[in-house]
Amino acid sequence: MNPDPDYSAAYLRLGTDAGDGLTGHGFVFTIGRGNDVQVAAIDLLRERILGRDVEETLADLGGLWRELVHDSQLRWLGPEKGIAHMAIGAVVNAAWDLRAKREGRPLWQVLALLSPAEIVDLVDFRYLSDALTPAEAIDLLEKALPGRAEREADLLATGYPAYTTTPGWLGYDDAKLVRLCREAVADGFTQIKLKVGADRADDVRRLALARDAVGPGVAIAVDANQRWDVAEAVEWMAALAPYDVAWIEEPTSPDDVLGHAAIARAVSPIPVATGEHVANRVVFKQLLQAQAIDVLQLDWCRVAGVNENVANLLLAAKFGVRVCPHAGGVGLCEVVQHLSMFDYVAVSGTTAGRMVEYVDHLHEHFVTPAVVTRGRYQTPTAPGSGAQMLADSIEAYRHA
Amino acid sequence: MNPDPDYSAAYLRLGTDAGDGLTGHGFVFTIGRGNDVQVAAIDLLRERILGRDVEETLADLGGLWRELVHDSQLRWLGPEKGIAHMAIGAVVNAAWDLRAKREGRPLWQVLALLSPAEIVDLVDFRYLSDALTPAEAIDLLEKALPGRAEREADLLATGYPAYTTTPGWLGYDDAKLVRLCREAVADGFTQIKLKVGADRADDVRRLALARDAVGPGVAIAVDANQRWDVAEAVEWMAALAPYDVAWIEEPTSPDDVLGHAAIARAVSPIPVATGEHVANRVVFKQLLQAQAIDVLQLDWCRVAGVNENVANLLLAAKFGVRVCPHAGGVGLCEVVQHLSMFDYVAVSGTTAGRMVEYVDHLHEHFVTPAVVTRGRYQTPTAPGSGAQMLADSIEAYRHA
Repeated sequence: MNPDPDYSAAYLRLGTDAGDGLTGHGFVFTIGRGNDVQVAAIDLLRERILGRDVEETLADLGGLWRELVHDSQLRWLGPEKGIAHMAIGAVVNAAWDLRAKREGRPLWQVLALLSPAEIVDLVDFRYLSDALTPAEAIDLLEKALPGRAEREADLLATGYPAYTTTPGWLGYDDAKLVRLCREAVADGFTQIKLKVGADRADDVRRLALARDAVGPGVAIAVDANQRWDVAEAVEWMAALAPYDVAWIEEPTSPDDVLGHAAIARAVSPIPVATGEHVANRVVFKQLLQAQAIDVLQLDWCRVAGVNENVANLLLAAKFGVRVCPHAGGVGLCEVVQHLSMFDYVAVSGTTAGRMVEYVDHLHEHFVTPAVVTRGRYQTPTAPGSGAQMLADSIEAYRHA
Repeated sequence: MNPDPDYSAAYLRLGTDAGDGLTGHGFVFTIGRGNDVQVAAIDLLRERILGRDVEETLADLGGLWRELVHDSQLRWLGPEKGIAHMAIGAVVNAAWDLRAKREGRPLWQVLALLSPAEIVDLVDFRYLSDALTPAEAIDLLEKALPGRAEREADLLATGYPAYTTTPGWLGYDDAKLVRLCREAVADGFTQIKLKVGADRADDVRRLALARDAVGPGVAIAVDANQRWDVAEAVEWMAALAPYDVAWIEEPTSPDDVLGHAAIARAVSPIPVATGEHVANRVVFKQLLQAQAIDVLQLDWCRVAGVNENVANLLLAAKFGVRVCPHAGGVGLCEVVQHLSMFDYVAVSGTTAGRMVEYVDHLHEHFVTPAVVTRGRYQTPTAPGSGAQMLADSIEAYRHA
């Protein structure tokens, strides 16, 4: 589905007159054409941000979210989806990056230090109340209060589980696939992921090779990148099922809640995963209500920032569905790990079945690159969200 | 929900070197901020259009649609939703406008003269096949072949039913509401629509006044513009039900298929309507599959143009749901009437329960303004889609 990606990002810096030298950084990952339109959408929000009181704004990021998302003229361009919504996400996330830096803490810890009431106040429950009320959210967060300190200590000591998509791209020949599978196991990963959906016979052959290379103890997920209709997904997965598939990711349109539900029923017990292209919390809500997904794959920049992803984490916790965020791209590993770590400390309280995607490229452009060792993200301790790119990289790769 | 609209449009002209002076016109209606971003998104498609062979392109608009919608880099920005998708719609619709002008026919007639196979070829069935296959679409179009000529003659003689939203805006005082309701009846409308959702007691009072003003024989629909959660919609509608409501429009988020389904079950027999903000055919498919809507309100520029709306008409026909398009805004009445007229002649074959929205403003800016007489759109006979604005209006209102 994505034959010619040209990895890009619409990148935002938020400065203040505080004189502390701190800036907030946010971005929207794109794969090329349209990046300039995404930049224009972010630029449109400039007038809403310039001149605000820094303390007040950062102290009420739930308020900032609601103000931007409920702007009726911008809302018309979605509502709450696509370029306009992702632009809000970049601004909100830059504000979170700044807030974390000013607090001198990594973002995951800033979030995990909030009280249940403060966390719930970050979330807009409009359109969610048939599935999750603020009172239910408070309740589940309070249940996770005991053990926060122990889980934080565990996180700092042992990190958070990762899986790798590095071996599985469709363009690799069989020898490279097998070599990369073996390297992934040697590197300590317990799950890998293969792209599928271009050619069924190829997929069967590649999956058999991968299974043989990693052995029975390593999980193999597959990712169809939205290629299929419902019936095709079911038939295709029947051919792949004998190789013990950890999940089928994006079998069809990310908008198709009922389609995912039909696929999930048909391919059971193979878990169904989606989320990197799910436009907002309302679609995630329905995917959970319809029992359409077994794995919720939130994305850092597809929805309107940290606040909406906190809503997604709360929804997943309510429905008992595990969250395995999408990463890779430009900088996604650096940032999205913070959300899973916050989830572990303060929301779901568990890492069971949960892991963050990892792809081993482009980390060298970030000030605090994600570090994955022996199949686990090493918990970041540097202040901020991880979004800040190196000045030299920005200079070298910025477009006119 | 839309307290401060600043009616705007991202407007596109498509020229050729044919020397015939004909240009194709397309637009995306917006309500202000963000219009420039919408323009930038349309501009991004310029390189995909410039230099193409005119005859070949216009002869295969299904191919143009697929090429633009399946562009993987642009697709990343949606997929198939929001600013990027609406930009494709503007381009596709401008191409249809040009094609109709070159054929010397109104758009509705261009479409209604196509064979079932040609109509089906306009549609991308990806993600639809669990609800509608090309063969099923051919079948229902062939069933509508007998009578095409009679229905065209009827359309040209009597026009197509309209309803009016003119009386019902929330800002009007009671006296103005009552006066406009009476004028609507005097003008021959058999359905009006009121905005609701700001204040329940106000809504009850206004609806009672409107019912008294129009009498029992005129239908009154209500429109909540996405204000409610599921439970709130159900409770609010219980208060309005005694006044014989023709439909409840946009009770909640346009993304919430399951929410609409829950509301539809609870407020039955009041019909549920939505569509002006439904992002694409995949969401419409689900609204139909889930029996979540009784009225499908397609919009001219929310989805990727005529082709996707042909898909929406076919889906509605398959599920036996009536289509009552959204109009008003800038130019929507001028253009969307063509889709309903095509539907009557060649798809559903009926106008039963169907009507096109009408609002009495901004028509003076269009070369071939929509004409509504005695509550019916007069069938346009001028070549084109109706999208072309007057040169003086473009000059007077264009932004820098």
